[in-house]
Amino acid sequence: MAEQPDAQQPLTERVVIVTGGAGFVGSHLVDRLVERGDRVVVVDNVVTGTWDNLAHLGDRIERVEADVSQGLALDTLGDRTPDTVYGVCHLASPASPPAYLALPVETLMVGSEGTRHALEVARQRGARFLLASTSEIYGDPEVHPQPETYLGNVNAIGPRGCYDEAKRFAEAMTMAYARTHGVSVRIARLFNTYGPRLRAEDGRVVSNLLTQAMENRPMSIYGDGTQTRSFGYVDDTVDGLLRLLDSDVQMPVNLGTPTEFSILELVEAVRQVTGTTAEVVHLELPTDDPTQRQPDIGRAKELLGWKPEVTLIDGLHRYADWLSAQTA
Amino acid sequence: MAEQPDAQQPLTERVVIVTGGAGFVGSHLVDRLVERGDRVVVVDNVVTGTWDNLAHLGDRIERVEADVSQGLALDTLGDRTPDTVYGVCHLASPASPPAYLALPVETLMVGSEGTRHALEVARQRGARFLLASTSEIYGDPEVHPQPETYLGNVNAIGPRGCYDEAKRFAEAMTMAYARTHGVSVRIARLFNTYGPRLRAEDGRVVSNLLTQAMENRPMSIYGDGTQTRSFGYVDDTVDGLLRLLDSDVQMPVNLGTPTEFSILELVEAVRQVTGTTAEVVHLELPTDDPTQRQPDIGRAKELLGWKPEVTLIDGLHRYADWLSAQTA
Repeated sequence: MAEQPDAQQPLTERVVIVTGGAGFVGSHLVDRLVERGDRVVVVDNVVTGTWDNLAHLGDRIERVEADVSQGLALDTLGDRTPDTVYGVCHLASPASPPAYLALPVETLMVGSEGTRHALEVARQRGARFLLASTSEIYGDPEVHPQPETYLGNVNAIGPRGCYDEAKRFAEAMTMAYARTHGVSVRIARLFNTYGPRLRAEDGRVVSNLLTQAMENRPMSIYGDGTQTRSFGYVDDTVDGLLRLLDSDVQMPVNLGTPTEFSILELVEAVRQVTGTTAEVVHLELPTDDPTQRQPDIGRAKELLGWKPEVTLIDGLHRYADWLSAQTA
Repeated sequence: MAEQPDAQQPLTERVVIVTGGAGFVGSHLVDRLVERGDRVVVVDNVVTGTWDNLAHLGDRIERVEADVSQGLALDTLGDRTPDTVYGVCHLASPASPPAYLALPVETLMVGSEGTRHALEVARQRGARFLLASTSEIYGDPEVHPQPETYLGNVNAIGPRGCYDEAKRFAEAMTMAYARTHGVSVRIARLFNTYGPRLRAEDGRVVSNLLTQAMENRPMSIYGDGTQTRSFGYVDDTVDGLLRLLDSDVQMPVNLGTPTEFSILELVEAVRQVTGTTAEVVHLELPTDDPTQRQPDIGRAKELLGWKPEVTLIDGLHRYADWLSAQTA
């Protein structure tokens, strides 16, 4: 049967397990893995993700609807999972503040038990492990821009602590598996990311403002809008994730856009892209909202040859197109 | 049967569950709870603790040998556990660097799942929850002394990250249960503690130096010995824990001795107490060893009326007596 290689089937097919693969960033990663010929097993409990994000892939992927916090037994990963696995990518987690603030215990659990279960699969199958960590582990940083060596300024007992500490813990657990069990690990620290499949109602600043502008509703800004963020287009983020997965870089790597915009500047870009005449309304700044966040991406440039390519205006256009298509 | 109150049995007997109750600090807490007439259920997997620490209490306590990371089902807590529980005190964790560096995954698990299981019991039985957290959540602090509002300087991916992040996570989970489930929580941040039942081979600086001095062996110092610590005698620590448990203080409270000693000064105190002529040998400083650690105990003083009472020399004498009795 294998004598005549199927032209559709690469000879060196690799298997990659993606937890949270039905989510925003996860589904783009799955797309790219499938595109390059990998076999992908997606594990998701679709609490904040949706299988709709992967509908276009049909039966080209394996879908497992399961909560990785409750366990990730190899024998439940579906019949397409072979003995050897190339990579386990752990992206499962609520990631927008409204989502994790509504699910604090679950968010902590997917960072702790979820990460451990994913690491266990990597250990058992000799796979490399990729953790999707976050710039939130830097908290409200006192160093700008933030290099990977910055230890952070996180309020563990604040409302956002459930997300930030879950990810810090996930990094510590990842390193414990590397040190104790020799698992080959990669840690990506993702800064703000936006693009298609970031749900209109997700609650992150780009989706909020763009959706409001497209509907000509007042654009809501938390605080005075002078706080800055870097906004990374999802294609760039996923490109970085793939480079990291395939690399031998076993230290944390920031993936983000070093160009810093204030929220007020983002509003101007949104106005330019949408042509909206909507006004701005100022809402109360949430507790522990970081005032500034900007990645130092020297490590990603040097070790992965990676840098973001998509400009904010270009990315907003592409995202706006997707949002329009959703409501059309 | 209850018409004639038993003189041995207080009328207002309270039930307290202590995880890690067979450990160093835990067993002293159990002593005090029993002394004042509480009924105590001790849960311990005796990985770093030992039932010997509680042998003198005979059948006055309930012992459950179980790993709280694997679950803490109410129906496994023994037949003496009644419907209502006054407090759940979560002290289970490896706590000395050699122990947690040898058990990094287990240390992370008892901070995450162990804490969640203990919180679940508190939630289900309407009990107050006390977390034994640590000054290690401040990492290598850049603020001196450390108030509870200091956010810390912890290296999540360093070797010590398994302990520090486990405790930071435990605090975040504790707050998530307070916010989500209304559990009444208390968080004690314990600084260096020493005293009887701190095993000679525990690996912490006071036990190391005192044991070496008593055996007239060279006293090992990591680095140049100028790094400072505060050393709290266990009776003081446990007095603080009890005050916090009984209080309505739902914010973290430092429990430690604000008097700062360098390791070299500790060596002098050990020489004074033991009369040793042993020399000092300098060993390599471990990764991420904090250079300074000193509690601001303003909150404990103000809200709990607590301050440490036992001097270093007095405490070392008492601890040395216990160590002598162990080897006698």
